[in-house]
Order: sequence, then C-alpha cells, then structure tokens
Amino acid sequence: MTCLIKLPVTDNLAGIHFQMKEFRWPVRVYYEDTDAGGIVYHTSYLKYMERARTEYLRALGYSQKQLRTEQDSAFVVIRIDISFKRPAVFDDELTVTVALSKAAGASLIFHQTICRDDEQLCEADIAVACLSAGSYTPKRMPKPLIKDIIHDS
Amino acid sequence: MTCLIKLPVTDNLAGIHFQMKEFRWPVRVYYEDTDAGGIVYHTSYLKYMERARTEYLRALGYSQKQLRTEQDSAFVVIRIDISFKRPAVFDDELTVTVALSKAAGASLIFHQTICRDDEQLCEADIAVACLSAGSYTPKRMPKPLIKDIIHDS
Amino acid sequence: MTCLIKLPVTDNLAGIHFQMKEFRWPVRVYYEDTDAGGIVYHTSYLKYMERARTEYLRALGYSQKQLRTEQDSAFVVIRIDISFKRPAVFDDELTVTVALSKAAGASLIFHQTICRDDEQLCEADIAVACLSAGSYTPKRMPKPLIKDIIHDS
Amino acid sequence: MTCLIKLPVTDNLAGIHFQMKEFRWPVRVYYEDTDAGGIVYHTSYLKYMERARTEYLRALGYSQKQLRTEQDSAFVVIRIDISFKRPAVFDDELTVTVALSKAAGASLIFHQTICRDDEQLCEADIAVACLSAGSYTPKRMPKPLIKDIIHDS
Repeated sequence: MTCLIKLPVTDNLAGIHFQMKEFRWPVRVYYEDTDAGGIVYHTSYLKYMERARTEYLRALGYSQKQLRTEQDSAFVVIRIDISFKRPAVFDDELTVTVALSKAAGASLIFHQTICRDDEQLCEADIAVACLSAGSYTPKRMPKPLIKDIIHDS
Repeated sequence: MTCLIKLPVTDNLAGIHFQMKEFRWPVRVYYEDTDAGGIVYHTSYLKYMERARTEYLRALGYSQKQLRTEQDSAFVVIRIDISFKRPAVFDDELTVTVALSKAAGASLIFHQTICRDDEQLCEADIAVACLSAGSYTPKRMPKPLIKDIIHDS
Repeated sequence: MTCLIKLPVTDNLAGIHFQMKEFRWPVRVYYEDTDAGGIVYHTSYLKYMERARTEYLRALGYSQKQLRTEQDSAFVVIRIDISFKRPAVFDDELTVTVALSKAAGASLIFHQTICRDDEQLCEADIAVACLSAGSYTPKRMPKPLIKDIIHDS
Repeated sequence: MTCLIKLPVTDNLAGIHFQMKEFRWPVRVYYEDTDAGGIVYHTSYLKYMERARTEYLRALGYSQKQLRTEQDSAFVVIRIDISFKRPAVFDDELTVTVALSKAAGASLIFHQTICRDDEQLCEADIAVACLSAGSYTPKRMPKPLIKDIIHDS
C-alpha cells in the first residue's frame, strides 16, 4: 500500500477532507469467519475493519472504553459503502488499513481496505458518528480526539 | 421426540429434579451459521439453543427484557456440557428443544437437543444463573418465574 | 411499507431497472445480535438482510443449496451501501424487506430495508453476483431464475 | 498460570493422559464479541479457545489448511464441557491456554482456560475428533501430528 500524501488542514472542522497516512492492523482468518461457500463470510470483513478502527484510536491514545465512561462518547457506524473484490479464505493473513478521509464535528469518515500481501480484497468508506453513550443522541466529538486525529494525519 | 413424564414436585426449591415436557423451537440454518468445513460452526448450535430458551420463557409469559428492566434480573450461562453427534448443514430445518431438568433458588439447568427430523444432531445440559442486571451479583430468581416454570412442567 | 409500483419490463437483461413489490421476512433480535453498547451490532443487520434474500429466492422456488449443487451457481455479495438510521435493541421484532432494483446477466441489485413497525431502522442497496460454485469465476445467472424474478416483480 | 508437570508417556495411543505445559495465545475483546448485557457473549469464549487450538497446532508446525488439503484430515469439535466463572468485558486483554490432556487414535481432549491477568474467567475440556475432510467419516489422526503433540508435551 502506498503512503498517501497529507493535505493542508485548517481549523474548520466542518467537512475537512484528508488524504492521509494509513494505520495498519494484521488479522488472521479463523474458521469462525468463514462460511460453507469455503470463503470468508461477508460480514467478517466489517468486523476486521472495526477492530482496526479500535486499534487506530488506541494508537492515538484513546480507548473507546474510557471515551464511553469518562466522556460519555460512543462511536456508532452510520453508513458503510463496501466493495468486495476477491475472497479471503481460512488461514489467510490479512492487513486491514484505516485512513481518515473526512472529519466533521460529530462524525468521521474512514477509508479502509483489506489486503492479502499485494492483493486488495475489499475497500470501504465507513462513516462513524459520535453519540452520547447514555442517551444515544448525537454530540460533538471530544475536541482533543479530533485534534489528535488531524495532527496524526 | 417423546414427551417426558412429569415427576412429583415439592415446594423445596433447592435441587428439584424434573423430567418434563419439551418446548420446541424451529430454526433454519443460514450461511452465517456455517464454516468453510461445509457444516454448521460449533458455536452456532449454542446460539440456536439460547434462542429456544428465550422463546421458552416468552411462552411462559416472561420477556427477558422486562425481567432485566423491571425485576433487575439477568440470566447468564454458567456451564455448558454439549455433545455434537452429527453435523447440520446450510439450509437445514432444525428443531431445538428446551426442557428444565433442575431448578434451585438462583439457577436453572436446562436439557436441550437439536434435531433434524428424527436425527439428533446435538444434546446439552446448560446451567443458567440469575444475576442482578445492575451489579452482576447472584440473586434469587423471581419467585413467580420459578413457580410458572414448575407449573408448566 | 407501501407496495411499490411495477415498471414495464423488457427482455433486455442488461441493466433493467425495477420498482417492485417487496418481499418481507420477520426477524427477532436475540442477545447474539447485540453488543455492549446495548444495541444491535452493525453487522447483524446485514445477516438479517441475507436471511431475507435467501427466503425471497426460496419463495420463488429456488433453494441456494440446489442452485449450488445442481446448477454450479453460487451467489456472492460484491457491494453493500447501507445507512443505519435508528438502532434496534434486544427482543425487537423487525421486518426485513427485499426488492430487486436491477438485474443483469451475472448480477442482481437488491434494495433492502429493516423496520420496526413503521420506523425504518436501516436501508441498503446490495449487489450480488453469480459465480461458479466450483471455481468462483463469474457466470451468467440461471435463465429460469432471472425470468422468475422478473415475472414475480 | 503455573507450568504443569509432564507425566511419563508410553507408545500406547489409546487413552494416554497428560499433564502438560500450556500453550498461550493472547486475545483482545472487541465489540463484536460482546452483548447487550455489557459482557462478552458466551459463545465468544469458545471462538477464542478455537483460535488458540489453531495457533497451538501451527506452533507445532501444522496448518489445518494443509492437513485438510494434503492429508484429508479435518478436526471437528465433538464435546465441550465449559464453566464460566467471571465475565470478560469490552477491551479486555485475555490469555487463552491450550493443554492436551488426552490423546487417542482418532480424538484429542484439550484442557483450556481463559484468564485476564491472574483471574480465571472460564475453563473447559474440549474433545476434538479427526475426520476425513472429504467424507466426514472418522479417521485416525496423522501419526506425525500425534507424535509431535506428545513430544511437545
């Protein structure tokens, strides 16, 4: 995967588009992820992508558990646009990437891929919103988190 | 499945053993339940068994959602002893049975089977404890529930 | 959900767009479908949608098991565009709809929704391709199936 | 976890009991593994245990994929006896152990635990049989595999 160039960033948090470096997370395919077609079941790729987003936040210093309990912030997927190109199979070693492509006050859009060596297996744009963990109503993302994500990019 | 004979029941709720009639719940096998071995993945049978227990309680008039919110009672699996005899495959129509075999103040033991027509695919004894939904500490099961389960048997 | 009007259909199977009647399939939310956020985990909705597509084909007289073994045809999801609007929770009774919106020689696009009573929880466009079950290479969909799907619409 | 003492081993592969060293595999809890009760869903622990068995075999030099394709051997779970003692929660770092406790010609019994630091969360005995990957009929385990497992112990 090529390293993407970082675009200039302003303080305007409404709809900032990024081309940014990728975070990578390795995943092994186990039987639980496959189906009787002999390949990985389609929703398993989405689970892999979520694990990578969780680890991406952790790498920035944010645990979703703490965000939930200390900042009443929960991240919820609101939209997924995913294309499946080639199937993964049992025992494959995959690499899941995470790159932030857009950040606004209450949502983030991630561009994610799953690859097996040089082969891209699937690609997705995933929008995640910040909600109050207590009431599940939309809220602005914690400012430090937005700043760290932009800074990391 | 033969209908089991009901044994005499006393008011002593510590370790009452039952042989009781079975509750049955139909399940269809979908791709999500299978694995690359071409058969149903082993944990899928346990999910089917839990659906049947939920529906068994519902048939007695108890929604686990209400038990949780109105009576601070949550049911948690504490032990499973399951034997897998023959595999189910994609598209099978299965019947899951639930029969209570033992009831005490804070736990229940269910005997469950999964069959495809006359063939028994698996069989399990599953112990479920009642915990406080708020603190996850053991608590006595709501008395009306115990009475209804015994009465139903 | 209102019944959608059927548009005129031609014999040209390349990119025919439909507005068609919906097939509906009921689903109950169990604990296995939920997550620690207290709501249904996002991939569970996609499993529900797949169950409904399987039942839609069955209602037309097609078992995916037979298509696989007798016609060497397997259906694989190649693209999903899904929006999550409101969360489902444990014990909800949901209705999943399936409507074919586009049919070509080797793929189908379904428009699907998941509702709880009158509330729409999510909505998706899902593209499914026909592959050889043996070699996983693209192949044309069995003609009778295409005809029945169009005829049903 | 303390290292268990190895008992003397004979060449008699019918019912050899072992006390052996443990293989350990780390697992992180993600949202996909949890349920609306706020804890890890019970079948997730069994998935973790299977991942650890797969990695245990890999550490001995055996890939289940190769065993399937080159030696027509598939491993299928035939019995599970598992006790759940304390719940794991989202974001926990767990350690799954695998220790072989009994080996016969066509089956293995593993003793497995899942711990969070020093706390044991669950414990299981899991019997796995060797079947022909093609016909799913019982067959003797590949001799080199049995020898390596015993030797490793």
